[in-house]
Amino acid sequence: MTQYTAPLRRLGGTVLARHAVVAVGLIAMTAFTVPESRESAGAWLTLCLWCCLAYFAIGSALRAHEAFRAGRLGDLLSTSGFVDLISVFPIPIALICGVSPPTAWLFASLWVLKLAQNSREFARIGRVFVLEAKPLASVLVLFLIVLFLASAAMHVIERHGQPEAFGTLPRSLWWAVVTLTTTGYGDEVPQSTLGHLLGAVVMICGIATFGLWIGILTNGFAAESRRSNFIQTWDLVSKVPFFQTLDPSAITEVTHMLRRVEMPERTAVVRRGRVGDCMYFIAEGEVQVDVEPTPVRLAAGAFFGELALLGNSLRTANVSTTQPSTLLILDLADFRTLTAHHPELARVIEAEGKRRVSDNQRRRELQLRSGTSMP
Amino acid sequence: MTQYTAPLRRLGGTVLARHAVVAVGLIAMTAFTVPESRESAGAWLTLCLWCCLAYFAIGSALRAHEAFRAGRLGDLLSTSGFVDLISVFPIPIALICGVSPPTAWLFASLWVLKLAQNSREFARIGRVFVLEAKPLASVLVLFLIVLFLASAAMHVIERHGQPEAFGTLPRSLWWAVVTLTTTGYGDEVPQSTLGHLLGAVVMICGIATFGLWIGILTNGFAAESRRSNFIQTWDLVSKVPFFQTLDPSAITEVTHMLRRVEMPERTAVVRRGRVGDCMYFIAEGEVQVDVEPTPVRLAAGAFFGELALLGNSLRTANVSTTQPSTLLILDLADFRTLTAHHPELARVIEAEGKRRVSDNQRRRELQLRSGTSMP
Amino acid sequence: MTQYTAPLRRLGGTVLARHAVVAVGLIAMTAFTVPESRESAGAWLTLCLWCCLAYFAIGSALRAHEAFRAGRLGDLLSTSGFVDLISVFPIPIALICGVSPPTAWLFASLWVLKLAQNSREFARIGRVFVLEAKPLASVLVLFLIVLFLASAAMHVIERHGQPEAFGTLPRSLWWAVVTLTTTGYGDEVPQSTLGHLLGAVVMICGIATFGLWIGILTNGFAAESRRSNFIQTWDLVSKVPFFQTLDPSAITEVTHMLRRVEMPERTAVVRRGRVGDCMYFIAEGEVQVDVEPTPVRLAAGAFFGELALLGNSLRTANVSTTQPSTLLILDLADFRTLTAHHPELARVIEAEGKRRVSDNQRRRELQLRSGTSMP
Amino acid sequence: MTQYTAPLRRLGGTVLARHAVVAVGLIAMTAFTVPESRESAGAWLTLCLWCCLAYFAIGSALRAHEAFRAGRLGDLLSTSGFVDLISVFPIPIALICGVSPPTAWLFASLWVLKLAQNSREFARIGRVFVLEAKPLASVLVLFLIVLFLASAAMHVIERHGQPEAFGTLPRSLWWAVVTLTTTGYGDEVPQSTLGHLLGAVVMICGIATFGLWIGILTNGFAAESRRSNFIQTWDLVSKVPFFQTLDPSAITEVTHMLRRVEMPERTAVVRRGRVGDCMYFIAEGEVQVDVEPTPVRLAAGAFFGELALLGNSLRTANVSTTQPSTLLILDLADFRTLTAHHPELARVIEAEGKRRVSDNQRRRELQLRSGTSMP
Repeated sequence: MTQYTAPLRRLGGTVLARHAVVAVGLIAMTAFTVPESRESAGAWLTLCLWCCLAYFAIGSALRAHEAFRAGRLGDLLSTSGFVDLISVFPIPIALICGVSPPTAWLFASLWVLKLAQNSREFARIGRVFVLEAKPLASVLVLFLIVLFLASAAMHVIERHGQPEAFGTLPRSLWWAVVTLTTTGYGDEVPQSTLGHLLGAVVMICGIATFGLWIGILTNGFAAESRRSNFIQTWDLVSKVPFFQTLDPSAITEVTHMLRRVEMPERTAVVRRGRVGDCMYFIAEGEVQVDVEPTPVRLAAGAFFGELALLGNSLRTANVSTTQPSTLLILDLADFRTLTAHHPELARVIEAEGKRRVSDNQRRRELQLRSGTSMP
Repeated sequence: MTQYTAPLRRLGGTVLARHAVVAVGLIAMTAFTVPESRESAGAWLTLCLWCCLAYFAIGSALRAHEAFRAGRLGDLLSTSGFVDLISVFPIPIALICGVSPPTAWLFASLWVLKLAQNSREFARIGRVFVLEAKPLASVLVLFLIVLFLASAAMHVIERHGQPEAFGTLPRSLWWAVVTLTTTGYGDEVPQSTLGHLLGAVVMICGIATFGLWIGILTNGFAAESRRSNFIQTWDLVSKVPFFQTLDPSAITEVTHMLRRVEMPERTAVVRRGRVGDCMYFIAEGEVQVDVEPTPVRLAAGAFFGELALLGNSLRTANVSTTQPSTLLILDLADFRTLTAHHPELARVIEAEGKRRVSDNQRRRELQLRSGTSMP
Repeated sequence: MTQYTAPLRRLGGTVLARHAVVAVGLIAMTAFTVPESRESAGAWLTLCLWCCLAYFAIGSALRAHEAFRAGRLGDLLSTSGFVDLISVFPIPIALICGVSPPTAWLFASLWVLKLAQNSREFARIGRVFVLEAKPLASVLVLFLIVLFLASAAMHVIERHGQPEAFGTLPRSLWWAVVTLTTTGYGDEVPQSTLGHLLGAVVMICGIATFGLWIGILTNGFAAESRRSNFIQTWDLVSKVPFFQTLDPSAITEVTHMLRRVEMPERTAVVRRGRVGDCMYFIAEGEVQVDVEPTPVRLAAGAFFGELALLGNSLRTANVSTTQPSTLLILDLADFRTLTAHHPELARVIEAEGKRRVSDNQRRRELQLRSGTSMP
Repeated sequence: MTQYTAPLRRLGGTVLARHAVVAVGLIAMTAFTVPESRESAGAWLTLCLWCCLAYFAIGSALRAHEAFRAGRLGDLLSTSGFVDLISVFPIPIALICGVSPPTAWLFASLWVLKLAQNSREFARIGRVFVLEAKPLASVLVLFLIVLFLASAAMHVIERHGQPEAFGTLPRSLWWAVVTLTTTGYGDEVPQSTLGHLLGAVVMICGIATFGLWIGILTNGFAAESRRSNFIQTWDLVSKVPFFQTLDPSAITEVTHMLRRVEMPERTAVVRRGRVGDCMYFIAEGEVQVDVEPTPVRLAAGAFFGELALLGNSLRTANVSTTQPSTLLILDLADFRTLTAHHPELARVIEAEGKRRVSDNQRRRELQLRSGTSMP
C-alpha cells in the first residue's frame, strides 16, 4: 500500500505543507468562533476545517500503519503519537456527543502542537528545563513564598478599604500574581500608603525573581547548546577525510569550532564578489562551483571557500548546492587558531588552494576566455 | 523515645509528605478567607488546618528533641529552627489573644516557607546575592535615583492637571515604581505631553536598570554554579577507583566535566535501543544490568554505558538502580576530550568494554540462547 | 559633476548632519498630525518637511549617480538602496494620488530607517538572529502553543460571564497576547476563579518563554561579538610591526585580547595624572605626546601608555590624536597574561619604555627646564 | 582648622551616617509635599530638612576647603563636586527667588545622588555602558524604528474609531512606548482586529528588543567584571609573600582565581565547626586565631584556613579580624587546580599546616589542657 500513497505523501508530507495546513486550520477555527463570520461564510469554514482534519487524520493513519508494519509499536505511545491522537479524535467525539460545532471545533487549537512535533530544538529546550530543574524549582518556590506572604499581608492591609478587590485571599493572590509577573492589569490596585509600600516591594521582588529565572535559563541554555552541538558535529567531522589525519585531541578541538548548517537543494552558499570570512567543508551532499569554462562539482568530504581566508578576502566564484547538503563552517577566527596550532593543516589547505588557482588558470588558457577562479 | 516515633517519622518525614501537607494547608487557609466556603464547609476546613498545624508542631518538636539530645542547641537558632518556630506558634497565640479565626489562620501562609527549608538550592541562590551584593546594591541605588528624580519632576508637571494622582510626592512615587518596574497598572497615567515624554524616559530607564540587574544575576549564577558543582563532584570522584590513577591536574579536569545526578531506588537509568550519548560512573549505590541469561549487578566505583560511546551508539541493555544511587555522568563531548588528553583512560575503558562483550557472548553460548549484551 | 557637489556633500553627508535632519523631520512630521500645531504653524512645518525630503532626495540621487557611474548597479538593489527609495518616493506619490497632506506625510516616519542605514552594528544584530534562527523560532512556536491553548480554554471559561471580552476567539487571543508578553493593559481581565488560575499559569509561562528568548539571544550575542571582534581586530594587528615577531599562535592569542577603538581627530586619549590601566597600539592614524620641551608624534605601528603598566601607575603626559585614528587597547590584565607567556615581549616594551624615559630626561637636561616625560 | 573639625567629621563623615541623613531627608521631603502632614507637623519637617541641608552644606564646604588647601581644584569640577553643589545650592536659591517652600524643597530629591557619590561600582556600571555604547545605541535605534513605524500605522488604523486616543501621532507614540516597554497602562488600547494584530506584533518586538538589550548588558558586565577584578586583585597579590615565588604566568593564573573581600574590624571570618571550602590570604590588616591556650595573631601576608582544604573539612578554630582587613579568598575548586599545576605550592601549604598542628599540640601539652588547633 505504501507505494500507492507515496506520491500523495511526497506532496503532503513536507514540513512546509504541514505548517501551511496548521495555519489555515487555526485561522478557520478562530474565524468560526465569531458569529458574524459564521453566518456569512459558515459552510466554507466548516469545509476548510474538515479538510484540515482529514489531512491530519490521513497523516496520522499512515504513520500508525507504518509503525505497525515495522513492529515499532512504541512509536504510537511516544509524544509524537500522542499529538497525532489528540489532533484527530477529540473533534469528532465532541460532535458525536452533541457538543455544539463552534465549541467542538475549539479542539482544533490542539493542532498548534503539530508545529512542535518531531522538532529537535524542542527536545533541546526540554533538556534545559530537565537539567536545570532544581534551581528553576527553587525560583518557583521563591515565587510562591513572595506570593503567599504578600497576598496575606495585602489582604490584611486593604480588606477594609477595598472589600471587593482584597476581601478574600483568592482575590488578593490574583493581585499578587498579576503584580509579581509585572503584568499589572490594574483591575486590583492597593490604595493605602502601606499598600503602596508593600506593592513596591512585591514589584521589586518580582523583578529579582525574574532575573534569577533568566540567569538560570541563560546558563543552562549555553551549556546545553555546547553539548548538543558537539555531539551532532562530531558525527559529521568523521565523514570529512581532511580531518582524519588529525590526532584525537585536535579533532575534539576542531569539533568545538565547526558550525553545522543544513541547506536545501539549489541554494546559493557563496556569492562571487562578497567578502568571505569562513570556509566550508561538505559533510553530506554536493555543491557546484561556477568556474569558467565548466562548473566543477565537489562531493561530500571536499572543502571550498578557503581562498578568501588565505589571501584576497573576496569570493571568486558562486557556489550552490545541487542536493540537500550539510556543510560545516569554519570561521576566520577559528581558522587562524586552528592553523596556528596545526601548521600542517594550513599547508594542506594552502597547497589545495594553489592547485585550484593554477588549475583554473590552465583551463582558462586552454579556452582563451577570461574566466573566474574558484571561490 | 525515638524508636517509638520512628515509623511515624518514616511515614510523615519524607519531603513528599511535607510538601503535600503544605499544599493542603495553604489551600484550606485560602478557602477559609472566603465567606461562602467558610459557611458551607467551615468545620472541615478548620479540622484540616488544625491537622496540618499538628503535623508541623509534631515535626518541629521531634527535631527540637533530637537537637536537644545531641547537644546541638545551635540548630534551634538556625534558619530552619526559626521556620519551625514561626510556622507553629503565631496561630495559637493569635487565637488566644482573641483575634478572629479567619485572620489568625492567615499566619498559616508562613507554612509556605517549609518548601524552602533545608534546601541546598536556596543556599546557592542566597550565596549569589551575597557575592554580588555590591553591584546589585548599586543597581538598587540607580533605581532609587531614577525613582526620586522622576517622581519629583512628574509631581511638578502633572500636579495641576491631576491633583488626585500626582498632587503629592507619595502618589507620584507610587506612579514611578509602577512604571519603572514596567508593571503599569494604569491607575495613574501622565496626560500632558511633557508628562508623556518623562514617562517614556522612565520606562526606558526601567528596562535599562532591569537589564543590568539580570546581567549581574546571570554572571553571578554562572560563577556560583561552577564553584558549588565542583565541590560536590570532587568528593564523589574520590570514591571512583577508576579516576585514582590520574594525576591531580587530570582529576581537576575530569571533575569539571562530570555531572552529578541522584536517582531513587528502582529507576531506569538506560533503556535498551535508545541512542546513548554519555557514560556513567557509580559514586554511591548499586545498579542492575539486565543482560541475558542472568542480570549483573554493579556496585559503587564501577562504570557502565561506555559501549555506546566506543562503537555502536545504541544502548544494548536496560540498566536500573537497585538502591538510591548517585551517578556521575560523562557526556560524549567530554569523553572525547578526556580520552584525547589521556589515552591510557581510553585503553582501560576499551579493555573493560571488550571484556564485557566477550563475557556476555561466552555466557550466552553456554546457555545456547539468543541474549543481550551489556549496555 | 561630483567635484561641484563635493563641498555640499562634505557639509551634508556627515553622519551627524543626517541624524539631525532625521530628528528634525520626525519632529515636524509628528507635530503636523496635531490639528492645533497645523493651524498655528502649518506653513513652517510643511516647509521644514519639504526641506528634509529634498535633503534625502539629493543624497539618494547622488548615491545612485555614483553607483551608476561606477557600474555597481547591485548597490541600488541593496537594503541601503531600498531605504533610499522608500524614504523619498512614497510621499510625493501619495500627494499626487490625492491623499490629504497630514496622512501623506505619515510616510515620513520611514525616515527613521535612515538611522540604521549602513550600520555595522545592525548587520551584527541581524547575524545573531540568523545564526540563532532555529532556537528562536522554537521559542516563538512555544509562544504560539501557549497562546492558542490558553485562549481557547479562557474562551470556554469566561465566554458566559464576559461575552464582550471573551465571547469570540479573536478577543480571547488578544487577551492571551497581552498577558503572555506581560504587557497587561487590563482591558480584558478574567473574573472567575478558574479564569484567575489559568491567567496565573499563562503569566508564568510568559515569563518562562521570555527567559528562554533572552537566554538564546544572550548566548548568540556573546558568540557573534567574539567572532566579529576577532575578524576586525585581526586585520589591524597585522599593521603593527611589534606583533609581527610573534608566532601565529601568539598572534591569535593577542588578537583575542585587544580591543579596537576609533577616535576622531584632536581627541584626548590619555590625560596626565590619571591612573592608567591599559596601553595603546596605533593601528591607523597618528597621535601627539605632549612631552616637554617639544611634543613627539607617534605614527601608525607605534605604541604608548606602557609606562603606566611597567612601574608607576599614573600617566606622565597628555596624548591626543592628530588625525582620525584607530587604536588597539591592551588592558592591564591581558598585558600581564601576555608578558607572562611571552617574556620577550615584556623585554621589548620595557626597553622601549626605558629608552623613552632617558630620552625625555636628556632633552630636559639640554633645555634645563623641569619637563614631563612620556605617558 | 581641620584638627578642630576632625571629631565632627569622624562622627558625620562615615558612609552610614551619610546614608542615614539621605534617608531621613528624603522621607521628610516626601512628607512635606502632603498637605495633611504639612499641617500637623510642618515645623518639625522644616527643621529636619534644614538640618539635613546643613549637614550636606558643611560636608561639601569641608571637602571644598580641603581640595583648595591641597591645590586639587580639579576635584571641585568632578562629578562628586557637582553632586555636592546641586545638593546644597538649589534649595536656598529657590526659596530666595520666592518659590513656595513645598516646591523649593522638591530639590531635596537631588540628595538621592549622594548615595552614588564616590562609588566604585557606579564607575564600573558606567564603563559597561561606555564600552557597549555602539550595540546599545543600535538597540535604541531599533526601538525608535519600531516605535515610529508602529505608531504611524496604528494612527492610520485607529484614528477614526478612537480619535481621542490615536487621533494624533504624539498620542499614538505614547501608546507605542507604553506597549513596547511592556508597561501596558491600558489608557490607550487598540480595538479593531487590525489594531490587535499590530499591537501583538509590537509587543513581541518589544520583548525581542528587550532581550537584545539584556544580552548586550550581560555580556558587557561579564567582561568588565573580569577586567576590573583582575586589576584590583593584582595589586593585593603582590603584597602576599607566598605568591612571590611563583613565575609570572602562575601569578596571572592565581590572580584570576582569587576573590577579594573587605572586612571591617572585629568581624568573624571563620567559625569553628563549620564546613570550610576556601582558604584565606591576608592582603591588608590583621586577624586573630582563637587557639588554646593563647590566641595567635596573623599579620598581612599570612594565610589561614588551609587545614580545612587539606584533610578534615571542618574549621578547627574561630578567626576574626582585629583591624579593617582585606582578605583574598581561594575557593576549594581553584585550590585543587592551583596545587595540581604547582605541586610546590601544595607542599608549602601542607608543611605550614603540619607545623601549625604540631605547634598547637605542643602548646596544649605544655599547658595540659584539652585545646583547639588552628582553623
